[in-house]
Amino acid sequence: MTSCTRRLRAALLTSALALTGPALAGDDGKVTDFLLDNGMEVVVIPDHRAPIVTHMVWYKIGSADEPAGKSGIAHFFEHLMFKATTNHAAGEFDSAVAEIGGSNNAFTSYDYTAFHETVAPSALGEMMAFEADRMRNLILTDDVIKTERDVILEERRSRIDSSPQALLEEEVDATLWQNQPYRIPVIGWMQEMEQLNRTDAIAFYDKYYRPNNAVLVVAGDVEPDTVKALAEKTYGKVARGPDLPPRIRPVEPEQNTKRSVTLSDARVSVPTFSTQWVVPSYHTARPGEAEALDLLAEILGGGNRSRLYQQLVVKQGVAAEAGAYFQGTMLDATNFTIYGAPRGDAKLGDVEAAVDAEVAHIARDGVTDDELEKAKQRYVRSMIFARDKQDDMANMYGSTLATGGNVQDVLEWPDRIRKVTADEVKAVAARYLVLDHSTTGYLLPQQQAGN
Amino acid sequence: MTSCTRRLRAALLTSALALTGPALAGDDGKVTDFLLDNGMEVVVIPDHRAPIVTHMVWYKIGSADEPAGKSGIAHFFEHLMFKATTNHAAGEFDSAVAEIGGSNNAFTSYDYTAFHETVAPSALGEMMAFEADRMRNLILTDDVIKTERDVILEERRSRIDSSPQALLEEEVDATLWQNQPYRIPVIGWMQEMEQLNRTDAIAFYDKYYRPNNAVLVVAGDVEPDTVKALAEKTYGKVARGPDLPPRIRPVEPEQNTKRSVTLSDARVSVPTFSTQWVVPSYHTARPGEAEALDLLAEILGGGNRSRLYQQLVVKQGVAAEAGAYFQGTMLDATNFTIYGAPRGDAKLGDVEAAVDAEVAHIARDGVTDDELEKAKQRYVRSMIFARDKQDDMANMYGSTLATGGNVQDVLEWPDRIRKVTADEVKAVAARYLVLDHSTTGYLLPQQQAGN
Repeated sequence: MTSCTRRLRAALLTSALALTGPALAGDDGKVTDFLLDNGMEVVVIPDHRAPIVTHMVWYKIGSADEPAGKSGIAHFFEHLMFKATTNHAAGEFDSAVAEIGGSNNAFTSYDYTAFHETVAPSALGEMMAFEADRMRNLILTDDVIKTERDVILEERRSRIDSSPQALLEEEVDATLWQNQPYRIPVIGWMQEMEQLNRTDAIAFYDKYYRPNNAVLVVAGDVEPDTVKALAEKTYGKVARGPDLPPRIRPVEPEQNTKRSVTLSDARVSVPTFSTQWVVPSYHTARPGEAEALDLLAEILGGGNRSRLYQQLVVKQGVAAEAGAYFQGTMLDATNFTIYGAPRGDAKLGDVEAAVDAEVAHIARDGVTDDELEKAKQRYVRSMIFARDKQDDMANMYGSTLATGGNVQDVLEWPDRIRKVTADEVKAVAARYLVLDHSTTGYLLPQQQAGN
Repeated sequence: MTSCTRRLRAALLTSALALTGPALAGDDGKVTDFLLDNGMEVVVIPDHRAPIVTHMVWYKIGSADEPAGKSGIAHFFEHLMFKATTNHAAGEFDSAVAEIGGSNNAFTSYDYTAFHETVAPSALGEMMAFEADRMRNLILTDDVIKTERDVILEERRSRIDSSPQALLEEEVDATLWQNQPYRIPVIGWMQEMEQLNRTDAIAFYDKYYRPNNAVLVVAGDVEPDTVKALAEKTYGKVARGPDLPPRIRPVEPEQNTKRSVTLSDARVSVPTFSTQWVVPSYHTARPGEAEALDLLAEILGGGNRSRLYQQLVVKQGVAAEAGAYFQGTMLDATNFTIYGAPRGDAKLGDVEAAVDAEVAHIARDGVTDDELEKAKQRYVRSMIFARDKQDDMANMYGSTLATGGNVQDVLEWPDRIRKVTADEVKAVAARYLVLDHSTTGYLLPQQQAGN
């Protein structure tokens, strides 16, 4: 129900959305947003093509908000929220969703934790009642904590500790981020997860699981007035919590070095590398910079038409894969990543050198107007595609609102993308993609250790 | 008066002392320790060879205890403590010390902040009165904060930001330590130092500058009864502060990767490297492990008789320098470091390979009984040398007591060193000095960038 697979998939999805673009107001009608009296924010996205509705609650609490030494507690709540409340036994919510043929899940990221269901519109009130109930009425006994802690520990063992790729990514993150809390893994460090206890859990729940720290997103075959009436009857009855301080976290100092992190493991067959830089997110960037970074990622390595793919995979034929991406939807500064893997007899070093050459080229010479126009067009096409997916739309709004943005930011985003100039793309490439100040992870087969 | 030079020198001194060994009770008489009624700990080390006395106050507060986002505030207090109090103008304490021909200073480390004076015994009471006054009576106005903040910012610019070596060390530390707060520089990250304000300072001062969070160390030509009477009249009048929670900080997860951090700079003429591992400190180690690490560092690279020096500098002649050290006196897990630099036409890579070979050799084959015996003897000789320096003795006790140890630990330390076996040295080498799980910093001349 509440797995890290889902979490990771959701993170990729959010990333993909940042690439394809928070864009649209649904097929029909205007996106509505309003506040309940207790401070809970509500966004309604009409989409009447099919009789379904996506109901999501986003809590503005993620792993980067965790107290020192309590890593993993945000994700722990992704699990705990499926346990018994004073009104419902554990599993009852899941069963109710399954009985009506719906689906549900949850995910945790650095900046938020979200719970969602997709059901028939007639079940929306019931979903809200369940969600509003578990927002405040969880029964957090020592027994519940212990049982579910064993589950997350096993999750860490199976998904991270047994995966060379995941272990490497964890240490690359902690090497890229030397001060900002994105260096701490969402699932938590094992030795801290083991110590999470009932006192920690209750303090965390009481502080963050409150209507004034949550965003309700409803997309689908439903009217704003209906959503409002149902929300007031359910979430509206939950008492407002204490005001939380602004989410001001330690920020990253300037990077002066070139860093690398290497993991060699017998289970690795093809070597890979990825290089990252700290760059601004939509929330921290100066106007236009994040949009320019989105288009830079698209042009440099966003897909089969990108420079990296065309040059390394198609023309030179040295790479099995090569690309770039930008994680724009984050509360704090974020990362820009390039990656590659060799094909056939090619060496990893050759692929890295070729990727680096493309990075140096784009930072020095910028992009052409034609490339930029085509990249923008690809974005627009992606938006049309995204429009077809109700949960993608809901995710766009939820992730934006949970990372310091608002509905207007989502609505105006396509126009801001259209305004980006080639000079702006060149400027962000030159400013941020400095190879001497980068962090590279290498995943190598055992025999290449030390190479 | 309160400089980072001094801080850094003090850190080296502490390290050197860990190598040369907290050992002795002074030339004459027994080390006495007791508590004042308000919880302040007092250690008296008789040393009657000359009519001088070393007076130190160690606060159990260092940079690793700082609140998130407030890096630099512990060291900031090293400066603020020299400003005006309700009883004395700024500079008055310094002038009083200078007038009587004494010396004074202060230093900050990860685990403590210390203030010390060396004066004639007749001035001890006056020193105590000054120290007890500034423990609680500082006047922390916005103006004082701003002025002294400019001083520490300039200190950072001149000592860190203008030094390739210092910048590299900072990022190596933050790469070695991915969770434990030793990754944060003692002087602080610039962007956080700039934001330190009066509210932060008052909260910090009121929490940590209290008699029950301090250790008084007096070494010199004075009797314990005299010290006790003077301390009760001065420090004894200061009200106890609130009880502080145990100093439990985030700890480091297991390292699965080989990491590197490279800085290339035109100001560098000779390339150097240093490789570090996370190892236990005296406070965190299982019995005997820290002592074995001390002897391992001594045998591998502790001086001119060490393997690294003999092999690389003397026999092979490829290195201008090569060595190893272990920082044992820390509250949390600490680091073990090896380093080297090429001589003449030798390449840095050759030196690193030769150092690595010595590490692999000692981890695989251990040390000989003869080497171990000689290393122990060198320790004993160092102890005799240390005995001659009153401030070294005071530092031993202060740093040990400020990092979770007690007087008995200092007194018994030589015996514990003598008991270490060759098998124990081999075991810690094999367990901790794993090259695939290490962190290396490279400082390179500009033209070697990317090599």
